[in-house]
Amino acid sequence: MVRVGILGATGYTGVELIRILSNHEDVQIKYLSSQNFNGKKIEDVYHSLKGYCDVELHELNIDDIVESCDVVFAALPSGYAMNIVEKLCSSGVRLIDLGADFRFDDFKIYKEWYGASSDDYGSVSRVYGLPEIHRQEIKNAMVVGNPGCYPTSAILGLAPALKSGIIENHIIIDSKSGVSGAGHSPKQGNMYAECNESIKPYNVAKHRHMPEIEQELSKLNHEDTKVIFTPHLTPMTRGILSTMYCRLKKDISIESIHEIYREFYKDEYFVKVLDISEYPSTKSVYGSNFCHIGLEIDRHSNTLIVMSVIDNLVKGASGQAVQNMNIMFGIDEAKGLKMVPVFP
Amino acid sequence: MVRVGILGATGYTGVELIRILSNHEDVQIKYLSSQNFNGKKIEDVYHSLKGYCDVELHELNIDDIVESCDVVFAALPSGYAMNIVEKLCSSGVRLIDLGADFRFDDFKIYKEWYGASSDDYGSVSRVYGLPEIHRQEIKNAMVVGNPGCYPTSAILGLAPALKSGIIENHIIIDSKSGVSGAGHSPKQGNMYAECNESIKPYNVAKHRHMPEIEQELSKLNHEDTKVIFTPHLTPMTRGILSTMYCRLKKDISIESIHEIYREFYKDEYFVKVLDISEYPSTKSVYGSNFCHIGLEIDRHSNTLIVMSVIDNLVKGASGQAVQNMNIMFGIDEAKGLKMVPVFP
Amino acid sequence: MVRVGILGATGYTGVELIRILSNHEDVQIKYLSSQNFNGKKIEDVYHSLKGYCDVELHELNIDDIVESCDVVFAALPSGYAMNIVEKLCSSGVRLIDLGADFRFDDFKIYKEWYGASSDDYGSVSRVYGLPEIHRQEIKNAMVVGNPGCYPTSAILGLAPALKSGIIENHIIIDSKSGVSGAGHSPKQGNMYAECNESIKPYNVAKHRHMPEIEQELSKLNHEDTKVIFTPHLTPMTRGILSTMYCRLKKDISIESIHEIYREFYKDEYFVKVLDISEYPSTKSVYGSNFCHIGLEIDRHSNTLIVMSVIDNLVKGASGQAVQNMNIMFGIDEAKGLKMVPVFP
Amino acid sequence: MVRVGILGATGYTGVELIRILSNHEDVQIKYLSSQNFNGKKIEDVYHSLKGYCDVELHELNIDDIVESCDVVFAALPSGYAMNIVEKLCSSGVRLIDLGADFRFDDFKIYKEWYGASSDDYGSVSRVYGLPEIHRQEIKNAMVVGNPGCYPTSAILGLAPALKSGIIENHIIIDSKSGVSGAGHSPKQGNMYAECNESIKPYNVAKHRHMPEIEQELSKLNHEDTKVIFTPHLTPMTRGILSTMYCRLKKDISIESIHEIYREFYKDEYFVKVLDISEYPSTKSVYGSNFCHIGLEIDRHSNTLIVMSVIDNLVKGASGQAVQNMNIMFGIDEAKGLKMVPVFP
Repeated sequence: MVRVGILGATGYTGVELIRILSNHEDVQIKYLSSQNFNGKKIEDVYHSLKGYCDVELHELNIDDIVESCDVVFAALPSGYAMNIVEKLCSSGVRLIDLGADFRFDDFKIYKEWYGASSDDYGSVSRVYGLPEIHRQEIKNAMVVGNPGCYPTSAILGLAPALKSGIIENHIIIDSKSGVSGAGHSPKQGNMYAECNESIKPYNVAKHRHMPEIEQELSKLNHEDTKVIFTPHLTPMTRGILSTMYCRLKKDISIESIHEIYREFYKDEYFVKVLDISEYPSTKSVYGSNFCHIGLEIDRHSNTLIVMSVIDNLVKGASGQAVQNMNIMFGIDEAKGLKMVPVFP
Repeated sequence: MVRVGILGATGYTGVELIRILSNHEDVQIKYLSSQNFNGKKIEDVYHSLKGYCDVELHELNIDDIVESCDVVFAALPSGYAMNIVEKLCSSGVRLIDLGADFRFDDFKIYKEWYGASSDDYGSVSRVYGLPEIHRQEIKNAMVVGNPGCYPTSAILGLAPALKSGIIENHIIIDSKSGVSGAGHSPKQGNMYAECNESIKPYNVAKHRHMPEIEQELSKLNHEDTKVIFTPHLTPMTRGILSTMYCRLKKDISIESIHEIYREFYKDEYFVKVLDISEYPSTKSVYGSNFCHIGLEIDRHSNTLIVMSVIDNLVKGASGQAVQNMNIMFGIDEAKGLKMVPVFP
Repeated sequence: MVRVGILGATGYTGVELIRILSNHEDVQIKYLSSQNFNGKKIEDVYHSLKGYCDVELHELNIDDIVESCDVVFAALPSGYAMNIVEKLCSSGVRLIDLGADFRFDDFKIYKEWYGASSDDYGSVSRVYGLPEIHRQEIKNAMVVGNPGCYPTSAILGLAPALKSGIIENHIIIDSKSGVSGAGHSPKQGNMYAECNESIKPYNVAKHRHMPEIEQELSKLNHEDTKVIFTPHLTPMTRGILSTMYCRLKKDISIESIHEIYREFYKDEYFVKVLDISEYPSTKSVYGSNFCHIGLEIDRHSNTLIVMSVIDNLVKGASGQAVQNMNIMFGIDEAKGLKMVPVFP
Repeated sequence: MVRVGILGATGYTGVELIRILSNHEDVQIKYLSSQNFNGKKIEDVYHSLKGYCDVELHELNIDDIVESCDVVFAALPSGYAMNIVEKLCSSGVRLIDLGADFRFDDFKIYKEWYGASSDDYGSVSRVYGLPEIHRQEIKNAMVVGNPGCYPTSAILGLAPALKSGIIENHIIIDSKSGVSGAGHSPKQGNMYAECNESIKPYNVAKHRHMPEIEQELSKLNHEDTKVIFTPHLTPMTRGILSTMYCRLKKDISIESIHEIYREFYKDEYFVKVLDISEYPSTKSVYGSNFCHIGLEIDRHSNTLIVMSVIDNLVKGASGQAVQNMNIMFGIDEAKGLKMVPVFP
């Protein structure tokens, strides 16, 4: 039985972790932290959890965590996980961070985009927690940087094409995200009356997920790979669709590309490559840990168009985190994650 | 292993049955019928089922059903299940009908509201499949009439008050349903552009679910009980909220009523009575088999206000059908139905 | 040319006033106040107003208002309008308050529900600004208390039945409102991810609009009239639907009731009584100053069901306020208010 | 007074034409055709028009049209307008076609993408009705091919950059459209339950609007210009956002590009170029004839990102059609089109 703690349990990714772990047979939720609901039970804060989780919420206390947990999921604002990582590791508690603290190979890039008071990661060794790409390293990792939601959709969609060397190292990523991706705290821009019946771009060519995407694509490609990344706020609660435009290096048929993708993901439970001329929709993965990928070619410009969809809170956050935990603890990777997408 | 058939597998309740049964360990889906997708696999029609169900769709063939199934879920237009029920029963195949064919004690009422070519049910004995009320009869039933979505929300919300005799036999039920309740066939009124940003009443005081509600309330109450029933089409995909107004027979405190409700449902897994001054929302049961009930009193008029929510496709249809199947086959009643509500 | 000021111009009702007044030929917007956007132009805060209104926002300054305005619309938190009313009136500036400060005949009721530091209205004479009911008094009013959104839908829907004496003085009002009714300030409960795919009751039998409704119904009825009022938050931006249940005093045909309603509203531009067996939808009045009313009878219980819809920000707030202004200044009542509903 | 006919009056663009023309002082609606509602009044079919238009619907009769109309708006399926154009023109009735029949310079391209029984346009001379680009030709046109919704958003967004020669002739257009763009006829894919909470690409790199866009861009650019065009169905009723990626020919500052855009549109009432680092949202133009354009540069790849939004039913269809009519009849171009966007 893996003993689990969740820090920041009342944010959307925290609640989603509890939704998933409540049905995970090898896991016991032992510790939940929350800044605002200290002393309450999580099922009284979120009625959707009624009957599933009566653990009480506490202010974050590192000693209690160390005592009661084998692994901790951190769903905290940027920088917080970094403050507790050494204490956790030295006590043998493993960390899966849903924030950005441990996603970067190069601390300088992290510091440039997120800010930081220190200058390096210290002795903490980290793994970028995208199982389909880094499964082996994840197995023994003490600290996993769980990927961002946009990067997950982008990297899974591009990995086969990049790895096989058929596309150039300059890619346009036009992503559309549901509003839950903006988090749980009330902000003007996330109000129902402002988001409904509206789609809009934001942080164009300067979103924090851009360097994260470029880091991973460059490793797949073995060359410096750059992206233009345009996120859009879309009037839906969950879901990310990334539509990606990649210049092909040479003529290659859609059938051959399709074959490359099928082959690349042939042993992956959570990635489905759709048939030729099928396109994905976010609804088809709603509430699940799946990624669906569709492929098309614009013949005139010899451009590959990759369309990939995930549920931003599952494969884009909490589901992937549980997938990482399963790998780290030698559990069947899909355990607790076989939720069928909710349609319609 | 229970061998299951689903007739009308490509409608919304059919797809929802498959979503639920895919994760049910004691069940094997053996037969799927569909008028329009003969020869296709269901996972190719609904991408949400990719990887979960590769059963092929066939035109309904009664002999094949009898051979391959222990129980059949019928998600067919009114009247169809009635045509095949005798053949099924005589072959020992049990039937859970998600339509209205077997919901009525009195065939005349069925005929009046739904039309029918015959004049009686023949020798078919039927049970109204609301487990929280009729669990004992369901156990041995050959034919279960699975309740309508509105009736489920209404009856569960009213049963404790009616049974305990604290309210009068005239009740106002103001229900709000998501659009999936209108079914899968394209109709003008269910188009996105017409439903979005709009709420509207329909079939006011003449919806087909009214006699069904009255039948069951009258049995609980042991007197002729009448309702005013106003359904509303609400701009959301799933969910029903019924707000119900009941004249109290005498002064009684909210605490006492609350206690009556808690007691009534104390052994029920799927019904949660909220704390006093908590109100339910449809989102808190999204994708799950739960019913949440909130209570309030208007002191001035001595009126009890009951608010109950369900997911119309789960507890209001396919989830309840699986719950009935579990009971009929001696399986743990909640098996396969522990999906945690998807929030947000 | 009427010179207009708007206090609280950056809230939703403020922005809606500007949307309407921008196309009003007899009006000049002279003054806009805002706490948070001091110094900015309104069209730079709200892009929807680009090209229509380049007036600069100021912190509220009573002297500037008095100098530049003939009439002031106050869209301020409760209690603020009361602080400036005497200064305005004594300077000859008329006030249309979109808040609750001047809606009550009895200050004690206002104080009970909204709180107040003083004990009476002082010498300020006020008119409840529902033109279809109080048109004559509005003409010469210095101060108009613009009705709440829920009360507008309820009172217009019930007035003909109450005035004609056909219904009893106990009424159930089940109202469904879009999220914009909750205002412009970010709150957890109004976030997109929380409201979408969810309907829920709130403030059941204790919403502040209840006493306001009862005051006006009692005047129409000439007897003490009580309501059970249940508001619901509905997943849409705009619109209110009130479904109302009224016990009929005696048998009366739907045709006769329909005739009473048609007659009552025969000279009203903004109220449309639908044909028998037609029901209203909020979408049919979206963005407009109309109220549509549908009628049905439940014969068994002799209950009249009235369904009325408005756009909460137009007829339920800013549109009605402009209608009041037109009346007060002898302008054609529909001037500037002929926006056709936006459908679909 | 211009006497107007609308053919296909009960589709969404037909209803939108009536919404707009109802408030147009120089226009009289004289003739409405509809296949399905023959004999009914339009205000009884669409309650949103109650009080605005009591014209009766007729089956299309060309003689009646010729007799009663100066200009006809055709909102008909592809090919129908072509059948009546000669009769209309020879009778002096001008035609504004909201379909695709008259949008192409080269009949062969029309035939390839839409099919046709004939081989040429005959003697009919046509103008592509995008006023900001072809105003002069529109003035005297007998037949105007009103642009498609996607093309309007794309061409307006790209025209200044193409005309000024700063971008290359290969452009990626990633467009997101509300569901009303799919029209009024019930189809599975446009049902509420299927569209809500879902975004999906469709007709990738093969949508019929692609050749229309390429035709107009090539004329602006004076060279053969190609686009990759990916339309997406977005869960909202109205609105199109086109995010466009254009390779810059040489280094040029965002300020200079901004200046090019401002200058290009400086006399245009309906096109607003947003400030640098402001991005458009579809909600900001909801229900209006505006196009908002935002600009950004990705410095690393020297790519200009243009984001343009319109309401697909107004500037993308019926509003633009009325704008064309105003130009053709010498009326002030913005007359009847000053609807302020509805926000929120």
